Amino acid sequence: MTELAAVKAALKTQAVETPSWAYGNSGTRFKVFAQAGVPRTPREKLADAAKVHEYTGVAPTVALHIPWDTVDDYAALAKYAEDRGVKLGAINSNTFQDDDYKLGSICHPSAAVRRKAVDHLLECVDIMDATGSRDLKLWFADGTNYPGQDDVRERQDRLAEGLAEVYERLGEGQRMLLEYKFFEPAFYTTDVPDWGTAYAHCLKLGPKAQVVVDTGHHAPGTNIEFIVATLLREGKLGGFDFNSRFYADDDLMVGAADPFQLFRIMYEVVRGGGFTPEVAFMLDQCHNIEAKIPAIIRSVMNVQEATAKALLVDREALRSAQVAGDVLGANAVLMDAYNTDVRPLLREVREEMGLDPDPMAAYAASGWAAKVVEERVGGQQAGWGA
Amino acid sequence: MTELAAVKAALKTQAVETPSWAYGNSGTRFKVFAQAGVPRTPREKLADAAKVHEYTGVAPTVALHIPWDTVDDYAALAKYAEDRGVKLGAINSNTFQDDDYKLGSICHPSAAVRRKAVDHLLECVDIMDATGSRDLKLWFADGTNYPGQDDVRERQDRLAEGLAEVYERLGEGQRMLLEYKFFEPAFYTTDVPDWGTAYAHCLKLGPKAQVVVDTGHHAPGTNIEFIVATLLREGKLGGFDFNSRFYADDDLMVGAADPFQLFRIMYEVVRGGGFTPEVAFMLDQCHNIEAKIPAIIRSVMNVQEATAKALLVDREALRSAQVAGDVLGANAVLMDAYNTDVRPLLREVREEMGLDPDPMAAYAASGWAAKVVEERVGGQQAGWGA
Amino acid sequence: MTELAAVKAALKTQAVETPSWAYGNSGTRFKVFAQAGVPRTPREKLADAAKVHEYTGVAPTVALHIPWDTVDDYAALAKYAEDRGVKLGAINSNTFQDDDYKLGSICHPSAAVRRKAVDHLLECVDIMDATGSRDLKLWFADGTNYPGQDDVRERQDRLAEGLAEVYERLGEGQRMLLEYKFFEPAFYTTDVPDWGTAYAHCLKLGPKAQVVVDTGHHAPGTNIEFIVATLLREGKLGGFDFNSRFYADDDLMVGAADPFQLFRIMYEVVRGGGFTPEVAFMLDQCHNIEAKIPAIIRSVMNVQEATAKALLVDREALRSAQVAGDVLGANAVLMDAYNTDVRPLLREVREEMGLDPDPMAAYAASGWAAKVVEERVGGQQAGWGA
Amino acid sequence: MTELAAVKAALKTQAVETPSWAYGNSGTRFKVFAQAGVPRTPREKLADAAKVHEYTGVAPTVALHIPWDTVDDYAALAKYAEDRGVKLGAINSNTFQDDDYKLGSICHPSAAVRRKAVDHLLECVDIMDATGSRDLKLWFADGTNYPGQDDVRERQDRLAEGLAEVYERLGEGQRMLLEYKFFEPAFYTTDVPDWGTAYAHCLKLGPKAQVVVDTGHHAPGTNIEFIVATLLREGKLGGFDFNSRFYADDDLMVGAADPFQLFRIMYEVVRGGGFTPEVAFMLDQCHNIEAKIPAIIRSVMNVQEATAKALLVDREALRSAQVAGDVLGANAVLMDAYNTDVRPLLREVREEMGLDPDPMAAYAASGWAAKVVEERVGGQQAGWGA
Repeated sequence: MTELAAVKAALKTQAVETPSWAYGNSGTRFKVFAQAGVPRTPREKLADAAKVHEYTGVAPTVALHIPWDTVDDYAALAKYAEDRGVKLGAINSNTFQDDDYKLGSICHPSAAVRRKAVDHLLECVDIMDATGSRDLKLWFADGTNYPGQDDVRERQDRLAEGLAEVYERLGEGQRMLLEYKFFEPAFYTTDVPDWGTAYAHCLKLGPKAQVVVDTGHHAPGTNIEFIVATLLREGKLGGFDFNSRFYADDDLMVGAADPFQLFRIMYEVVRGGGFTPEVAFMLDQCHNIEAKIPAIIRSVMNVQEATAKALLVDREALRSAQVAGDVLGANAVLMDAYNTDVRPLLREVREEMGLDPDPMAAYAASGWAAKVVEERVGGQQAGWGA
Repeated sequence: MTELAAVKAALKTQAVETPSWAYGNSGTRFKVFAQAGVPRTPREKLADAAKVHEYTGVAPTVALHIPWDTVDDYAALAKYAEDRGVKLGAINSNTFQDDDYKLGSICHPSAAVRRKAVDHLLECVDIMDATGSRDLKLWFADGTNYPGQDDVRERQDRLAEGLAEVYERLGEGQRMLLEYKFFEPAFYTTDVPDWGTAYAHCLKLGPKAQVVVDTGHHAPGTNIEFIVATLLREGKLGGFDFNSRFYADDDLMVGAADPFQLFRIMYEVVRGGGFTPEVAFMLDQCHNIEAKIPAIIRSVMNVQEATAKALLVDREALRSAQVAGDVLGANAVLMDAYNTDVRPLLREVREEMGLDPDPMAAYAASGWAAKVVEERVGGQQAGWGA
Repeated sequence: MTELAAVKAALKTQAVETPSWAYGNSGTRFKVFAQAGVPRTPREKLADAAKVHEYTGVAPTVALHIPWDTVDDYAALAKYAEDRGVKLGAINSNTFQDDDYKLGSICHPSAAVRRKAVDHLLECVDIMDATGSRDLKLWFADGTNYPGQDDVRERQDRLAEGLAEVYERLGEGQRMLLEYKFFEPAFYTTDVPDWGTAYAHCLKLGPKAQVVVDTGHHAPGTNIEFIVATLLREGKLGGFDFNSRFYADDDLMVGAADPFQLFRIMYEVVRGGGFTPEVAFMLDQCHNIEAKIPAIIRSVMNVQEATAKALLVDREALRSAQVAGDVLGANAVLMDAYNTDVRPLLREVREEMGLDPDPMAAYAASGWAAKVVEERVGGQQAGWGA
Repeated sequence: MTELAAVKAALKTQAVETPSWAYGNSGTRFKVFAQAGVPRTPREKLADAAKVHEYTGVAPTVALHIPWDTVDDYAALAKYAEDRGVKLGAINSNTFQDDDYKLGSICHPSAAVRRKAVDHLLECVDIMDATGSRDLKLWFADGTNYPGQDDVRERQDRLAEGLAEVYERLGEGQRMLLEYKFFEPAFYTTDVPDWGTAYAHCLKLGPKAQVVVDTGHHAPGTNIEFIVATLLREGKLGGFDFNSRFYADDDLMVGAADPFQLFRIMYEVVRGGGFTPEVAFMLDQCHNIEAKIPAIIRSVMNVQEATAKALLVDREALRSAQVAGDVLGANAVLMDAYNTDVRPLLREVREEMGLDPDPMAAYAASGWAAKVVEERVGGQQAGWGA
């Protein structure tokens, strides 16, 4: 197989998981702008997600968020998805939208609230059993807003205790992915604020506990690809929540704010052997003002483009320059791949996969947007908290 | 008058405006936690604000937010306030919570939306006429989320045009205060992102247009007191929206995150001749997880303490050390004031004003919190968007 | 002329000024690593700069730094440059490396030090008269390290006074470019910390005073292209000091850290009518660990590539999408240009200019690097402070 | 013992290590301003450090930096120190000021350079044997400036290998303290950029490897006290390099930029059982523009004041409020301690220790500054690189 053929083959195997909630409405604390045609049920979200996979060919699974996607019959939901060509993916827990969680969930000072939170996580594992999901994605909004508000260290003890109980419950082939976040909604301390904290907990829990990197969850200036390389070296990179940001956790389309950073991240993934199913590539975005399905298609394409460039890096030439201490030469090898216009290559890949080479145009021509606007009238549009 | 007497006299004249919306519910995009006893109407907000003034003695005015505080009869509302010992303060416009404003308001690409936004601002001036308010506070959520989304420069033209129309409408003794904000809810460009932009517009508009500094609206590391000093020097500091933050626009209680910064800001205010009614000292905070009235009382007290310390700076000694190039000596003069425990002084001031020396305890003992929890049942609690 | 021909024509007229000091040694406070072959004199710097122009065709002028490039006979120096195909460009002042400037220069508390600093600036204008330079570039290291150290406001008064004296001295066709910087070497206040401060001073000074944007001199997350658009709209953008950074004022090769940002900046330049000689495009970089001449060639090429992409933006399509409020469509138009591989186009442009299409390879093959290593032995290598 | 007596007793046992290099000249990449009277030899630095201890009573040890403090006879140097009332403290390695280290030291692509770096570290342990020092403090300037420059992951392998060799060499009672730093002098990747990386390495190395927290080495907005609490919980906090900053690694006097943060850090130290000799409290500062000895005395006093406030926190009341979920109450308990003016208490402590209650005044009156200015004439002033 030629090198280009290998790149193409790799690109055809790529899998980007899309999140059910990105198909629903989202916004900021100032306003959620409703969009016509937005799904009202988990099934409608899956139907939209199936469209993304239909046109990109590389978005075969859909992450669920509990309780936003709670249904009575998960097997039926899975069947519904499969009938449309997609599968259910990671289960995302929610311990931040119940009134009880005002001061935290699994780290709350009250044992009763902690119990409730852990029970929710255990229920999520039950759902994983029903959906056949591999990954439980844990993001905790826990933290404090004011110095002194709670005991920083004891909250870590509570966190460790709760995670341990959930870890024990995980079945064969199931994993927990622990997400960290710099800040928001907590504004003084966050109980899992950085990769180091997530890593330390996962290390103690065991091999089924892995760290997930949300690309929008870091302090300004943080070198994310370094974290990716380090977690891969430690065998602790469980996956990504992709999105992009200029400021904080902006949750913009991945690759929209800093496509070069996305490329550097994907390069470290490839270089570190992380381009495998063991690392879950997920989107976690908010399409506050733009049309949701096209935004997700664009995001998937942005990941593809960054991956294609990462795969095109001449690793041998790079290594030679690095070993020789040739700073400019090594940088030039990397930049050569980045500066390549990989869109023609990806069009070829899509054609070889039996897809339209232009997913955006194909989706636009499909009439789906108009159809759902017409059909999805009445009811409660999906969104955070619903 | 001795120097200490002068400090006390100044502290007795201090006026901190509290915002009607801080008495209502607020939260993050993740969750708004409702609190029992929260006001449901503008009158109930004013009743709460009157309590803050009753116990602190330095919170005599209350800012309104339109349309959250829209009423049929503003004269009656003003009378209601005055009967409780407070007055109506600045009118805050809202051009961000209507569906039309998804892509902006006064900077929107569509002339119709811009017209609607300007009309709202003009209506706010009408309300000012009715309430006798001096200041129209303008904060625009306008901006873009993605590169290319709109024309950055043309949006400035639209902004200038809209502001000019409103400026013309201002009556004798009325002002517009233009607020800037680094980001949020817009995540790529914000149309008034920094003091320079606000200043440039105000300069062209004329003397009734002034810049307002929200202490949470800056890039990480920004030296806010420098901006304060500079705006005072330029005659363009119209006021403050006080709050504090560790990360972004956290809207925590002022003085909670960095009391030393608040002191430095107040020092520049005092030094620059800004401790006058021409500079409006307002709070703009969100009490997402803490009790609202006590949080506002604490915030007012934090401003008082910072002001007291700023007034206590030995300006003559400071100047001597500065002129001599004595870095450590000059710093020590400033730190001496900061390190002073001014709480006893403020207790004295309060007693001399006929107040309880401990506003927090006095409010707690007043029974107001229990009373409103009991009385304010049913209806729609006030909050953003309501 | 076809559109592509127009783009090519524009690229051929591009002019990027390279800084004499980038050819000398530089480093961090931890270490300056000396490189073999580095120039020892202003003439040797000009000889190196001439090489950059020889191979890129778009680096026709060289900025001088006084006193690092002080010579007895500037006319002779200019002649020396012209004989090698380049011209002398902006004069950069230095009021930070003399022992007297420990507490500032033009803002120093002592009138004597201020006098010395202003005299230096006036001398720089004398040199401009001799070299025929148009621009005096002013960057002040002035500021304070500790709260209280000096009077923030009075320092602005001193700054204004000093600048006014220098402004008066400017001749016909001469300008002063005032640079702002977020921090470093001052660590508490900087006397010109942001574009707003520079703008306010330039506005009062008059039309010959313009703001210069150093791309590394902003707070984390600052939207630089917004500033560029705003200054162009105000008629106050005098030029750029290009470089790139991941953290602070890293002074890396422009385009190395965030090529997408450089493109967005160049797009606003083009859109705002700033791609003219009235805006000076200068590099200001430090090649601490990489070979200097190739690093500068690469930087010039990076500016060219960003410019080419900016020129290729389909402005009509962009405008249509913007006016229609088509967020994704407008973003896609911009990204189409960015994702284009413009290197083939630039190779064509170079060939049409009679240049080697690959400046890096051509320089490498020239033998210049080996030649100067051999010749430039002994003496004092140029560097900051020398 | 009453509670206040216990606080006083604790304060009397406090030990802050001062760094030999802070007595020498330092600066930024722009300029090092020389100061009269600065030490020229390790002995002169120790003599100055002894003054700090003489007047504060809590600075009994002095950190050395190799090779800046290299001497032939360390036993004699130790004796010299002890004769003046101080002891030698931690040994700080330097693998950043040799020309070989341009691309790194222990992480350099070349095995020969790595060998040289590790040999230097081993030599430092030899010196520890001679001086009786417990701690080897390791800060690596290693990193890269450009994407692609070197293999991020392989550099971690090299780091691990080098550290392991040094770890093996540590004797009974000796430790290595691994320091992390966000950036500078490397501007793209830093090989130990955050506490997570330092922690992961220390964990693998074993109990003699501990993390050291330099308070200036974090991304903007990082919650340092959280890291302190976490490292203490993990048994991995080896010590502090105290200083303060507004922007990057400004190395200002500790407590000068954010005294509230210093207090919060010291509170977590006290709360987490870290106020013991197992945690080394060291200063690491640069007094670029202020007099060095008084700056260090002030810094030691700032640490004392923060510690006193931390010790005064009413832990029982705090815990009650925390357990009750009383956000404002818990915050108020912490703030009560912070707002206390502890200077009178510390004056008492000093008097009870037989010291002058005002160390700054006592030092100023001692005549030492004038004496060393007179005596230390000629020779080479100590500074970075010398």
